[in-house]
Amino acid sequence: MTTQVQALYDFSGEPNTTEMSITCGEVLTLINTEIGEGWWEGRKANGETGLFPAAYVRKLAPEESLPTKVAPAAPPRYDQANDDWGDQQFSAGDSNFQRGTSHEEGWDDDWDDDTYSEIGPVPQQSKAQYDQKLTPLPGMPISDYNHQNEDTASNYGSSVGTVRKSKFAPSSKVSGESYLLATLNVEVADSEKVYIVQEEDRYEWWPITQPYNVTVASPKKESKFKGIKSFIAYQLTPSFNNIQVSRRYKHFDWLHERLQEKFTLIPIPPLPDKQISGRYDEQLIERRRVQLQEFVDWMCRHPVLSKCEVWQHFLTCTDEKRWKAGKRQAERDALLGLNYCISIVVPEKALLQSQVDHVTEQCHMFINSMDTSVKAVSSMCVAHTKKLQTAYRADCQKVGEAFCSLAASLSLDEGSLASTSKLTTAVKMTGSAYIDIGRMYGDQPTYDWEPLGDKFHLYKGVVGGFPDVLATHKSAVQKKRECERLTAENKMEIAQLNEVLRRTDVISYALLAEINHFKAERTKDLNATMQKFLRQQVSFYKRVVEKLETTLKYYDE
Amino acid sequence: MTTQVQALYDFSGEPNTTEMSITCGEVLTLINTEIGEGWWEGRKANGETGLFPAAYVRKLAPEESLPTKVAPAAPPRYDQANDDWGDQQFSAGDSNFQRGTSHEEGWDDDWDDDTYSEIGPVPQQSKAQYDQKLTPLPGMPISDYNHQNEDTASNYGSSVGTVRKSKFAPSSKVSGESYLLATLNVEVADSEKVYIVQEEDRYEWWPITQPYNVTVASPKKESKFKGIKSFIAYQLTPSFNNIQVSRRYKHFDWLHERLQEKFTLIPIPPLPDKQISGRYDEQLIERRRVQLQEFVDWMCRHPVLSKCEVWQHFLTCTDEKRWKAGKRQAERDALLGLNYCISIVVPEKALLQSQVDHVTEQCHMFINSMDTSVKAVSSMCVAHTKKLQTAYRADCQKVGEAFCSLAASLSLDEGSLASTSKLTTAVKMTGSAYIDIGRMYGDQPTYDWEPLGDKFHLYKGVVGGFPDVLATHKSAVQKKRECERLTAENKMEIAQLNEVLRRTDVISYALLAEINHFKAERTKDLNATMQKFLRQQVSFYKRVVEKLETTLKYYDE
Repeated sequence: MTTQVQALYDFSGEPNTTEMSITCGEVLTLINTEIGEGWWEGRKANGETGLFPAAYVRKLAPEESLPTKVAPAAPPRYDQANDDWGDQQFSAGDSNFQRGTSHEEGWDDDWDDDTYSEIGPVPQQSKAQYDQKLTPLPGMPISDYNHQNEDTASNYGSSVGTVRKSKFAPSSKVSGESYLLATLNVEVADSEKVYIVQEEDRYEWWPITQPYNVTVASPKKESKFKGIKSFIAYQLTPSFNNIQVSRRYKHFDWLHERLQEKFTLIPIPPLPDKQISGRYDEQLIERRRVQLQEFVDWMCRHPVLSKCEVWQHFLTCTDEKRWKAGKRQAERDALLGLNYCISIVVPEKALLQSQVDHVTEQCHMFINSMDTSVKAVSSMCVAHTKKLQTAYRADCQKVGEAFCSLAASLSLDEGSLASTSKLTTAVKMTGSAYIDIGRMYGDQPTYDWEPLGDKFHLYKGVVGGFPDVLATHKSAVQKKRECERLTAENKMEIAQLNEVLRRTDVISYALLAEINHFKAERTKDLNATMQKFLRQQVSFYKRVVEKLETTLKYYDE
Repeated sequence: MTTQVQALYDFSGEPNTTEMSITCGEVLTLINTEIGEGWWEGRKANGETGLFPAAYVRKLAPEESLPTKVAPAAPPRYDQANDDWGDQQFSAGDSNFQRGTSHEEGWDDDWDDDTYSEIGPVPQQSKAQYDQKLTPLPGMPISDYNHQNEDTASNYGSSVGTVRKSKFAPSSKVSGESYLLATLNVEVADSEKVYIVQEEDRYEWWPITQPYNVTVASPKKESKFKGIKSFIAYQLTPSFNNIQVSRRYKHFDWLHERLQEKFTLIPIPPLPDKQISGRYDEQLIERRRVQLQEFVDWMCRHPVLSKCEVWQHFLTCTDEKRWKAGKRQAERDALLGLNYCISIVVPEKALLQSQVDHVTEQCHMFINSMDTSVKAVSSMCVAHTKKLQTAYRADCQKVGEAFCSLAASLSLDEGSLASTSKLTTAVKMTGSAYIDIGRMYGDQPTYDWEPLGDKFHLYKGVVGGFPDVLATHKSAVQKKRECERLTAENKMEIAQLNEVLRRTDVISYALLAEINHFKAERTKDLNATMQKFLRQQVSFYKRVVEKLETTLKYYDE
């Protein structure tokens, strides 16, 4: 059934985009009303197709009257970035993927909207229209996904769905069961394999052979659709190729979800909180950049995470088509949760359960304590930053103002004595110095307390991820014990039990390797962090000393 | 009419004092019941006379019964210091001097009582009895006051009384009238004369020829009468004789009243406030000492005040009899208020009223502004001190505690890595360093903000004294104008007018000299004060730097 629409106003489409210009009175055939964000797709009489604002046309019916003369504002431009990255096609094509409500909100309600909704001109449309969501188009065929055969893919489909939900329900037992009970049997390419090796008395992830880093550059405010919608894009440059990619927070958020689904034995570093503290937009954005840099650094230094496919894709993809393909592939990844363990190659040596128990108990106790103290440092940094920026700054300025007012009084009765006017100047300089020091107190957190807080934000996330990791491991061990019981009751074959035991060991090896990685990493990292912090503190107090010493010179000896 | 009393209890008088031991049952002749503070004077059968607690005896009458067996507590000892300094005789002898209620309260309710009333044993008497005041004995003859003849002395009596009250009522016009209208004509000894000289375009007090200083040493807690009453005595040592004298606050208070009566054209530096801020007794006492030192320093540096008789007496008198005499003399001083100007010798040059007006207006404006800013600095010092001692100290300690808790967590998972345990130690040292820095923040005000506050307490008092000085001068000028009018109306002799004009000029000269003195003094003094303050601030921040740099060395490079 074909629907005709008539343009009510002129609309100039942006050249070289999917937009199309329409002229008031023109009649078009409606192709698609599910574009979202207030856009429809249509075809002109001359065959040209493209997008136009839905509010600019009306569906044709004989009783309709002529258009009014004043054109309403265009809807927010259909997000170019979404378009570039193929969200439309992805939504249309992924019938297996049911987006949760919270996911969908996270997607659209990203910071860019929060922070920059005022920057573009205020739309004349209602908020409801403005907030209109993308709706997935059902029934389009799955294409270019040939990582495994159709059977396996559909076999995993349900487990993938479960894992996605598990973002909000802790355990990934279900997804792990097929691995643990040896019903999952996939050939993993050698390039995908992850090795655990023994180093003295420790088990470790095979170390990174080609270390690299990625800089997250000062974000750019970008605007789309003639400034109606603007957002922040962070510029990422990996050292291994020096090619810059532009990523928005929602892309990080997407990546983060993929990583959390996939690595249930590796705590994923956190992204910045949405409610981050900051006094003004620029500062806020910079804080987010720093916290994203912390996230990226942690990823780069992790032997497993640093080389995983979705991360590499995120870091390097500049091409729209490749992005789409990679995105789909990541979202269909079957080796999620404990199933990922099928990629792990461990030493040919059975682990002693008592030893594993000892390490996990130790880790449990440590993580509990660390969780409290890391939170304490983190909130202390936030509180102290605020104090410095408000109370300390103001206190120091009051000191300065008192001296300045004294100088002003003294200046009223200087007379002819040189020493009198010299004193006035000196007291005035003292006042200014304290006002400056107040400013220094206020600005200082940017160099010490905030970066420290950002670092501990990271630790809060990583440490906070460990209880789930430990719980995942624990339930695997419980499953193993169940299998041992079943075998004792002759309800399970010895051969299958042996495979369960081997696979439980792989899970334990992975946990041990991750515990060791975290220990080594935090030791090196906190050592550097604390030194950097203290050096900034030293530098601050030295500058105060310098300021006061300069002031002293204004006085008569 | 002779009254007999019988001792109800044994009482052991302190040897070598005016006290006398009495034995239960002993009969004495009552000599004097007006000693005050619960003491009576009596004569024994053997002719010995002395003081004993009134509560220890009863007036003899035939119907009286025997004493009970338990002795009540002795009244507070009749104050030895008062006794030493001759208060009793002074009170008895000074029929002209009517003590105001507020004066009397100020006298007994001095800090010593506030601060140390708990230190001595709690008296068993009622508070009312304990607080019993000295009552002046009327009718005793005036002796050893030979500064001027009887006529003049009685002539001044009323004026002295007025001035005393004027502590609470601003103007000292009345006491100045006799000087200004030339009815006061006393020969002032050359040694008592005060000279004003011209120095370039300024009039100045004849400078101090023999500068000296006086140290106010750390006060001693002294107790009298077996510890029932204890108090603080400050040890003053003038540099010109190096003989230490012991003075209590009430002696300072007495001195201060004399100075304020005498010098209405010279603002007298303030004593410490009774409600001084301090966290504990020792600190409180030390603050008072510092503020007394400020008072004493200002006195020593003032060309007129530093050599005035009552001050010299206060600084040097160690002998009881001489103290009594000097005290009486000071309290009978006739040259109070503007009458003091008869001692001032000025240049033989009439002043231009317009010039005087200009200077006084300028001074008025300056003092108004200075009053505000000096108060601002003073209260800022108090507020900032409190913040450092509470909030800043606590904030820094919270920082330290957060790091310490982090170190405690890290210590739970050190394992065998040397770098891990080294980090734990370093983080712990960082925590300790911040706790120490918190302590430094709290202790620092003793070295910078409190001394600065003490100095501005002084300026608050001196600057606060100027409006009265200016008002006194202004009313003298008004009086002069009135006389000019009277002369124009032929109601006053030209010769008398000329003397009025000359004397008004003396008053103006004194004001100009005092204004200049204050200017020179504050310039020198504030210059030194601010430098001292800033040096302490520099030293503080340097110590913080040092502390943090030491901490940095605990980390692995």
